[in-house]
Amino acid sequence: MTPGEMLRELRGRKPLIHQITNYVVMNETANATLAIGALPVMAHAPEEVEEMASVAGALVLNIGTLSSHWIDAMAAAGKAANRANVPVVLDPVGVGATTFRTDTARRLLDEVEVAVLRGNAAEVATLAGLAAEIRGVESIGADAAGAEIARTAANALGLIASVTGATDHVSDGTRTLAVANGDPLLAAITGSGCMSSALTGCFVAVDASVDGAAAALAAFGVAGEDAARDAKGPGTFHANLYDALANLTPEELDERAKIEET
Amino acid sequence: MTPGEMLRELRGRKPLIHQITNYVVMNETANATLAIGALPVMAHAPEEVEEMASVAGALVLNIGTLSSHWIDAMAAAGKAANRANVPVVLDPVGVGATTFRTDTARRLLDEVEVAVLRGNAAEVATLAGLAAEIRGVESIGADAAGAEIARTAANALGLIASVTGATDHVSDGTRTLAVANGDPLLAAITGSGCMSSALTGCFVAVDASVDGAAAALAAFGVAGEDAARDAKGPGTFHANLYDALANLTPEELDERAKIEET
Amino acid sequence: MTPGEMLRELRGRKPLIHQITNYVVMNETANATLAIGALPVMAHAPEEVEEMASVAGALVLNIGTLSSHWIDAMAAAGKAANRANVPVVLDPVGVGATTFRTDTARRLLDEVEVAVLRGNAAEVATLAGLAAEIRGVESIGADAAGAEIARTAANALGLIASVTGATDHVSDGTRTLAVANGDPLLAAITGSGCMSSALTGCFVAVDASVDGAAAALAAFGVAGEDAARDAKGPGTFHANLYDALANLTPEELDERAKIEET
Repeated sequence: MTPGEMLRELRGRKPLIHQITNYVVMNETANATLAIGALPVMAHAPEEVEEMASVAGALVLNIGTLSSHWIDAMAAAGKAANRANVPVVLDPVGVGATTFRTDTARRLLDEVEVAVLRGNAAEVATLAGLAAEIRGVESIGADAAGAEIARTAANALGLIASVTGATDHVSDGTRTLAVANGDPLLAAITGSGCMSSALTGCFVAVDASVDGAAAALAAFGVAGEDAARDAKGPGTFHANLYDALANLTPEELDERAKIEET
Repeated sequence: MTPGEMLRELRGRKPLIHQITNYVVMNETANATLAIGALPVMAHAPEEVEEMASVAGALVLNIGTLSSHWIDAMAAAGKAANRANVPVVLDPVGVGATTFRTDTARRLLDEVEVAVLRGNAAEVATLAGLAAEIRGVESIGADAAGAEIARTAANALGLIASVTGATDHVSDGTRTLAVANGDPLLAAITGSGCMSSALTGCFVAVDASVDGAAAALAAFGVAGEDAARDAKGPGTFHANLYDALANLTPEELDERAKIEET
Repeated sequence: MTPGEMLRELRGRKPLIHQITNYVVMNETANATLAIGALPVMAHAPEEVEEMASVAGALVLNIGTLSSHWIDAMAAAGKAANRANVPVVLDPVGVGATTFRTDTARRLLDEVEVAVLRGNAAEVATLAGLAAEIRGVESIGADAAGAEIARTAANALGLIASVTGATDHVSDGTRTLAVANGDPLLAAITGSGCMSSALTGCFVAVDASVDGAAAALAAFGVAGEDAARDAKGPGTFHANLYDALANLTPEELDERAKIEET
């Protein structure tokens, strides 16, 4: 399937995307999910995560604002998703910044079969055992090595690694795709990485391959390009971004997606 | 009182609307509450909910992102509101989607005297013992039966049932009102249902009747119509919505509210 | 340093601002922090707050939506910040509205060496032992006495007191500065006080003095003036506010900051 065909199928099927994510971006990832054409649901209670995850089209786990009882719920939801063949996306926000985050991401990778690991270069490098510099939840200066990090992580961890940056790199260990869409304003708003993980959930609900993961980033990047056009700064860009996601057509996505094998 | 008279009184009195709501929409419902002219306060700790609820103009309980200790706080706040004659609005987000949510809503209806139950058709139908199809937190295809669901729920549960959809239906069991304001873009942003519950809290702080509950939905619907005018999609619509709520005058509300007895 | 010089240094250094804040405004304070040019990180787990706070440029504690385990984390983070000489900003949201909030703010002031206490007149007055009227988390009618409240609180509590209102007043007990920037629309959106606390964290990471605290409020006020220019209400104002913070230049800030000794 082309990215546009995936988008068309996604909008026809309207998959439920179960997200256990951080407090900072919940509204943003829910709105991005709705704008692209899927249905978001946020639920983190141990009493309901397994029931919710097992009927979802995809499960997105994001460790941006952790609490210990949330981690248990993430693990339980992930295992339920695995049993139901629901693909799991993991966003290891801030891994490397504190021991707690690194340990948590490793635990989730250990206990849950993750389909796509979506992070910045430093986060993914840390989990792949490569050196990286991190400050807070921001990755610094590791973008150049994106393709290599994605390939190494995919092989080391046995999953699709989706490394976002100025150019994104997505690899399943065999094929590695570069995605060159986007706009610098995406880095000026909080949660753009988290939104790209939510959209990855939407697309892998339709196509759980390296192509699906790359298509999600292309769709987000094209929307970012559109949102930047009339923006006067990060605030108006942010509002425009949901418009652009909702207005993106399958035809436009196929025409403008800059996805290349590397 | 007409809807416009309620709005005028609300802005003069500026009631405090205590909200124990979900993480996804807290910012949105607080801003909608401020925009219409009331004062929002979010507080969920067992140590303070009773003190806060008992001095509020209304209490809004929303189960969109549950945790067990939040449910205890909701019950305690609800009982304190009851003791102080503060009207309670319940938004049973996602009832029917998981057993945990259905059980929680039933427990709250059991322990707390709820003035208004504000939900979509499937949620309210589920609580009224009628059949409904739900996926995640979205209601599917139950809109047509809205008036009947509202009336049945009002009688079965002994409260005002406020069922939102393309056309909203509000019933106290004796009188049933249809509210025909709104715009399809309201369904394109997350939390629009939650915002309508918050506004219901604002209006029932002034008039805790079926007319107050209907006026809230008319005000929200008229604001949605205004917000859609210059919107280019869900993002700009969302920003415009707060402008429209703040700029809505009592005269305009009376003139444009489409409320009819059914 | 002038406010503009601080802003230039802040953007060059990009300090990490660790925020343990309320659910309602997390996205907003993160985006304001990014827009002014610093790096936000939200982390509240006891397992990681000390590690995060000790490498931050400033720590911002905000009690807007409390839970008991968050308070312990705030205290632990505050002590770690103190040990690492990282300045701590405390925003005592809603102090005086419930006993729990007042007790919590007092406990934090007792256990943590707070550099700047940033609140509205009623909140700061309550903590300084002065009389105040509070409803919910809103301060009522105490603005006139802002300068006196700031000075008294600074001396009584041994910190910089930053009291925001129509005119802001910032005092270290010896010097008291009035800041006359801003726009009434800032009071029409939720979290504007919390955003001013986050920006205070950004500026005191560069200059932890009464001048730094005042410069933060001037920068926020000037951005508010710019955001109001094309706004049609609180929604478009809110989007514009991030644009204005990001577009604010050091030169413009120095030219337009209305800071005066009182």
